[in-house]
This record gives sequence, C-alpha cells and structure tokens, in this order.
Amino acid sequence: MKLFRFGEPGQEQPGVIVDGVSYDVSGFGEDYTEGFFQHEGLARLQTYVRENEGRLPEIPAGVRLGSAIARPSKIVCIGLNYADHARETNAAIPKEPIVFFKATTALCGPNDDVVIPRGAEKLDWEVELGVVIGKKASYVSEAEALNYVAGYVLHNDYSERAFQLERGGQWVKGKSNDTFAPVGPFLATPDELGDIDNLRLWLTVNGETMQDGSTSNLIFHVPALVSYLSQFMTLLPGDLISTGTPAGVGLGMNPQVYLKPGDVVELGIEGLGTSRQTVRAYAQD
Amino acid sequence: MKLFRFGEPGQEQPGVIVDGVSYDVSGFGEDYTEGFFQHEGLARLQTYVRENEGRLPEIPAGVRLGSAIARPSKIVCIGLNYADHARETNAAIPKEPIVFFKATTALCGPNDDVVIPRGAEKLDWEVELGVVIGKKASYVSEAEALNYVAGYVLHNDYSERAFQLERGGQWVKGKSNDTFAPVGPFLATPDELGDIDNLRLWLTVNGETMQDGSTSNLIFHVPALVSYLSQFMTLLPGDLISTGTPAGVGLGMNPQVYLKPGDVVELGIEGLGTSRQTVRAYAQD
Repeated sequence: MKLFRFGEPGQEQPGVIVDGVSYDVSGFGEDYTEGFFQHEGLARLQTYVRENEGRLPEIPAGVRLGSAIARPSKIVCIGLNYADHARETNAAIPKEPIVFFKATTALCGPNDDVVIPRGAEKLDWEVELGVVIGKKASYVSEAEALNYVAGYVLHNDYSERAFQLERGGQWVKGKSNDTFAPVGPFLATPDELGDIDNLRLWLTVNGETMQDGSTSNLIFHVPALVSYLSQFMTLLPGDLISTGTPAGVGLGMNPQVYLKPGDVVELGIEGLGTSRQTVRAYAQD
Repeated sequence: MKLFRFGEPGQEQPGVIVDGVSYDVSGFGEDYTEGFFQHEGLARLQTYVRENEGRLPEIPAGVRLGSAIARPSKIVCIGLNYADHARETNAAIPKEPIVFFKATTALCGPNDDVVIPRGAEKLDWEVELGVVIGKKASYVSEAEALNYVAGYVLHNDYSERAFQLERGGQWVKGKSNDTFAPVGPFLATPDELGDIDNLRLWLTVNGETMQDGSTSNLIFHVPALVSYLSQFMTLLPGDLISTGTPAGVGLGMNPQVYLKPGDVVELGIEGLGTSRQTVRAYAQD
C-alpha cells in the first residue's frame, strides 16, 4: 500500500495509491498519526480500501501534497551514515550511529517551497531514506527490528551549515527551521518496496546531478538503526528515522555550493517517488 | 494559577491549585496540550474555576502526579547556561546558547522513579527551570519574548554521561531515555512566580545537597532564549524549554559521582515546588 496526504497545510486529508491511481480516503476518518499506526491502521485501511473498491473518489492531478505522515513525536536523524559522505565532509567513519533530532515543526509537503531562514547563507540538501515506525519500540533486537517498521518515505534533510556547525554546540540549530523536512510524496509499506538495502537515491539542483548513491552503501542499515535507537529512547508509532545521506552535498564541494532563491531541488528514491522544492527567501508575512 | 496533572500514566486528568488546595478540573474537558495553550486555555480555565468555585472536587493527598504538561511537540534544552556549571565540566563559556533536544518520550511525572537504562553506568542529575511556551513563536524579539510564555515548571534534565559524551556524536543519546524528564509538580503562570531572574534552585541526593544555585546566574536569560530559539525553529504552544543547570552535577565532581539503584533525588525551585525521584535499574517487563 502507498499512503499520502493531500490538501492545504494543516488540513491535509488521507489518500492511498492503488495501481497507480490516487484515491481520497478521507471517509476512513483518520489521519496518518501515531494513533493510526498504533491501532493497526494499515490493516484497517487496507480492509476499508478493499470494501470500498470502485466507490473511492479519485484525486485530480495538481493537488497539493502534505507530508506523507502526520506530525510524529520525533524525527530522529542519522549523521554520516554513508562512508563517501563522511569523507567529503572530512569526518571520521563513525563507530556507532551519530544521532540528532530535527524539530517536527520542520515537516512539510514534498513539493512545498523550502524557505531560507533569516540571516542564513548556507542552505544545503540531503536526500535520505526515511523509516516510519509502526509500533512502540524499546530495546528491540536487530533480528526483530523490521517488525517495528510501518514503511518508508523520501526525505530531504535540509541543513543550514553555518547554523549547524558555526553557531556553537549541537547540530539541531541547523536542522530545524520550518520547511527543512519535506517528506513524501508517499509512504510505501515494506511489501511495496522489496530490498531496502539496494535502493538508488539521487538529487539534482537546477537539473544538475549532485547526489547519486545507493542504500547498499549505508554504514548502519535499517535494522541496526532501529535496534540501536531503541536502546536510547522509546520509538513511537509514526516516528520518523532519517537514515543519512550519500556524498554530494554542498558542504562537501570545493568551493562549497549553497542554495539561493529560485533554485529548484529535485530528488528521488527508487520505489519511493520523487519530490521537488523551489528555494525562496524568508519573507515576513 | 497553578496547573498540574494527576492519575495513572497515560490517563492523567487536569487539576489546579487555588490557595494551596488541589482541585480536580477534569470537568473542564481538556488536557494541558498544544491545543489548550493555543486556544487561550489558561484564560478559559480561570473562568471555569471561578464559575465553579465551591463545586470542584478536591484531590486527596498521595495521588500520583503526571508531568505538569501533556507531551509537547518538543523539549528544547540549553547546555552550559550557568558559568559555574560550564567551568566544572571543563567547557568554555558559550558565546551563543547551546541547544539540544530531549525526546518527548522521556517525559514523566515529578515523583516517578527514574530508570537507569540497560548498560548505563553514568546517570546524572540536572535541576533546571523549564519554560512552557504559550503561543506560536517564530522570529520573536527579546522585548516581546515573555508574551510567548505560558508559565514555568521544575525539570530534572537527567543525563547518561557515557551515552551523551562517549558514544559518538551528539548529546541527544544521553538525554532521551524514558523517565529522563520528570516535569512538575505544577506549572505556575508568570503572575504566580514574580522575578524569574532571582529564583533559588537546588538538588539533593540522599539528603546531601549537590546543587544550590540561582537563576540570577543564568548566562542567557529567558527572554534571550525564547528569542534566540525562535530564529532556528518555530516554538509551538505547550513546548518546553529547559534553561540549563547550575554547578553541582555528578560529572563535575572529583571523583565523578553517578546515581545507583535506591538513591533518592530531591529538587526544587523557589515558587515551583519540589519533586522526588527514586532511582531504579531497568527491569524487563
């Protein structure tokens, strides 16, 4: 099953994609929240879709997409999880996963504009495979870990490098501005995706390829990450884990390259669709 | 007004303290959530309490308290925000606030046990003044900042120092385990508290004073913190900012001192009550 959310910001309705057609399932009466995943929402939604076959309204092309999942309790990100990306940023290969949080207020639709914060000059991109947790996970073993996964999403982990690295202390400052987490176009359940350890992921800026990697090069793979994180915090249904980015970010270039208003960023992961953000400057409302 | 929450974990009901007496206001029909603060909940609750004077059920002593606020969208913590604490941990005085997140799943009641995670050996305490956001804050000036504050709480920012400092990368790993954020006993609105820049805060372990400081020694005070954070992320109603801890943590002692099962931690802030946690080892349920 593929799940997405559509409509105006803050008023998104649930949708599903079946055989390539997008259907409105607002009649199901639930958003894709913690409660949805916790209470067997995926199974119940599948039954609802089957029972309403032929009666679900189709969604016209061009409608705005929201984040593929509702706001989770946390967005947990993994740093430097591709060896080539660690090298390009002059960082050591981590011995254990590097973990940081992104404010959940950063969440937005996959094709929404990305906004350069006030005073920012180093806005950078990071295409990443996102993992959505399906049930409460605490001290989960690697062998069990995939049982706790509801599905996968495309995520662009936008980062302001000066805020992240030059303003003192922890990375969170450069990861959390509004619009820094476009998620989607859709969540794909594991059965839709096949081998998650061999997915191509790529990103272009104004049509030029910047990142072109494969999840086969992850240092810590999905089961290891879910298990590891669950030793340090309880993962809740609907939580998002973003697994890190391959080489090709602006920070790693010589000279460094950062986004400017009008730039267009496009990205995709095999089996998880594509997204597209136009960069714009912050403007007081 | 003073707000608290009582009852079994996950089923807490709202209460208020008026003239030292604790009342059940579950009849008000709302928990102290983002929506409560966003939709003028404090003013509406005050009206409700006034209109129901003499008819509100009193709460018997000994009932379990939950966190004084419902789970927020984020818990934002400030590091090294007292000069004496920065010195004791051999850290430089920060030029800008050091910011990190704590998983909201760490939230618990003020008198709940604190649980030593599996494999943990360096559980440490940090008494902190918590600030609860009252309305959505983005790019707020210092002069306006206090208008965005709903109230204040007592918080113990429990930290596992090995997870935080010796396991690679960012601090979040040592800050986010379940029970690492006991909040309360109550939220006090600003009018209850008076001068927030001159509050004594203290912490004892097994009756021995470990921390005894004053918010007058904060490097970055509350208006500066709210304004600063709002440049990097949108603060939502109900969000918690924990403003940092004064000297006297276990990490700063020679030799270092960490908590062990059976230890009792008590703490308080002038005007914000006291809390008490008993340390216990993690046990598989």
